[in-house]
Amino acid sequence: MSEAALIGIDWGTSNRRAWLFDRGGAVIAVRRDENGIAKDDAPRFAEGLDLLVKDWPRLPTLMAGMIGSRNGWLEAPYVQCPAGLAEIAARLVPVGDRADLAIVPGLSLAAGHGDVMRGEETQIVGLAGSGPSLALLPGTHSKWARVSDNRINSFRTFPTGELFAAILDHTVVGMLAESHEVTADGFDRGLTRACDGQFFLGNLFAARADILLGLSSPRDCAGYLSGLLVGAEVREGLTLFVPEEQVLVIGSDGLAHWYSLALERAGIAVDRRGEDVAATGLWRIANAAGLVA
Amino acid sequence: MSEAALIGIDWGTSNRRAWLFDRGGAVIAVRRDENGIAKDDAPRFAEGLDLLVKDWPRLPTLMAGMIGSRNGWLEAPYVQCPAGLAEIAARLVPVGDRADLAIVPGLSLAAGHGDVMRGEETQIVGLAGSGPSLALLPGTHSKWARVSDNRINSFRTFPTGELFAAILDHTVVGMLAESHEVTADGFDRGLTRACDGQFFLGNLFAARADILLGLSSPRDCAGYLSGLLVGAEVREGLTLFVPEEQVLVIGSDGLAHWYSLALERAGIAVDRRGEDVAATGLWRIANAAGLVA
Repeated sequence: MSEAALIGIDWGTSNRRAWLFDRGGAVIAVRRDENGIAKDDAPRFAEGLDLLVKDWPRLPTLMAGMIGSRNGWLEAPYVQCPAGLAEIAARLVPVGDRADLAIVPGLSLAAGHGDVMRGEETQIVGLAGSGPSLALLPGTHSKWARVSDNRINSFRTFPTGELFAAILDHTVVGMLAESHEVTADGFDRGLTRACDGQFFLGNLFAARADILLGLSSPRDCAGYLSGLLVGAEVREGLTLFVPEEQVLVIGSDGLAHWYSLALERAGIAVDRRGEDVAATGLWRIANAAGLVA
Repeated sequence: MSEAALIGIDWGTSNRRAWLFDRGGAVIAVRRDENGIAKDDAPRFAEGLDLLVKDWPRLPTLMAGMIGSRNGWLEAPYVQCPAGLAEIAARLVPVGDRADLAIVPGLSLAAGHGDVMRGEETQIVGLAGSGPSLALLPGTHSKWARVSDNRINSFRTFPTGELFAAILDHTVVGMLAESHEVTADGFDRGLTRACDGQFFLGNLFAARADILLGLSSPRDCAGYLSGLLVGAEVREGLTLFVPEEQVLVIGSDGLAHWYSLALERAGIAVDRRGEDVAATGLWRIANAAGLVA
């Protein structure tokens, strides 16, 4: 294999992904497992890292995501927005006595409405193109970010995915759902309700009532809730950020599909990008910080 | 004691209350315990009833609330709105072979937006006065009901209380909260955010981020979430029902206080009523049904 030069890791709450890069920034190998920080605690992160990169050469290693949070390996202080590649690369936090093992700091917004991100800044830095854009990263805690010249000017978190799971697993409202599976019919029903008007809380209980009254089925319950939630997030996000043209939706999974549907329903053009922008972001930050020899 | 004539019970999910009435409808005795239907299952409801009314005379007994749900003693079919005292009294469901032991049916709305209530119909029937009004019954599943001539014309459920608990107990968003206690400062902060604009999902994550950034404290987290949720419900409820004058807020606890604050902030006059409207409602329904000799 061509000469390896860097290991990049996106180490989140539930999952982690590792990329092995050659000197030109091409990805030689990828690994993924479910040992997110929720599975480990500080004394074991070193072993956890060894396990992930075992049989890869010892190389400069850059980590992004919740590994840099209070519950991670060590807390990397937030860099305040607006910030881009230069500010982020200048504030990497080395781990222990290894100068070539570092954590990417998250970003914060403190003026007006407080907000934080960890991991998404790396994905955004990995986006191609430098024109102004609105990036949407769906997930447990969805992020909308206003980006220009590869700098993040402002952003907002919508904890939509987490609310979806909490409603399904821990409320009477979602109790009748057959599973967490989002059906197209259920999603469409929820999205239509969300697009109808100004109601969110007032549309939630129908997830239960419509089933009790025979107007909907337990199979479509999760889909209805997802459509309602994603539709509400998209409405709020578009109100807050008012995109001039298209929205960049980052993510390769089903979630990005549902968000694209909701955006298109609102008349917004969508440009889909894969999650591998995280790899590109890690490579760029490592280079800007001089981690790659 | 004056001659007893009826036992009325509001038997909910978590709690139940029983009233012993004399021939004139005055309350002779009250009992309350925490043996809601979540504590019992069908074969034991009879014993549960005996336990609640022990040493009271055997009398005609009327029960309202979740005891008439699918998970209760027996399922009392919903009466469709619009409906009032007459329709409800005509559809009581007798329990077993006791003609003088009956359950009050809940109400449903099937046209347009499906919705259901159980227990609140009895409280609404117990309201004094017969003019048109908008009644708000805050709770786990808050109800807003448009009432006139003692009939419920339409209503809407907002599962605000349940969402509050799910967010605090089962999400990262609420994880930093010190407790479920709603502080005045936290509530005011959340309510102000809710009144600001069109954002609900986009204001949730600040419950966490503001603490991480030192802009708020764990002590005010539950209050912030409560202000945000109650504020959102009040905004949606007022949009949906557009009250002409005051809103009747039913409930004697802290919750009614917070809802009153949110309504007053929106410029709406509030008329508070105690929860004992449930007793009056049970008495009226029992009389209309001929249960009281």
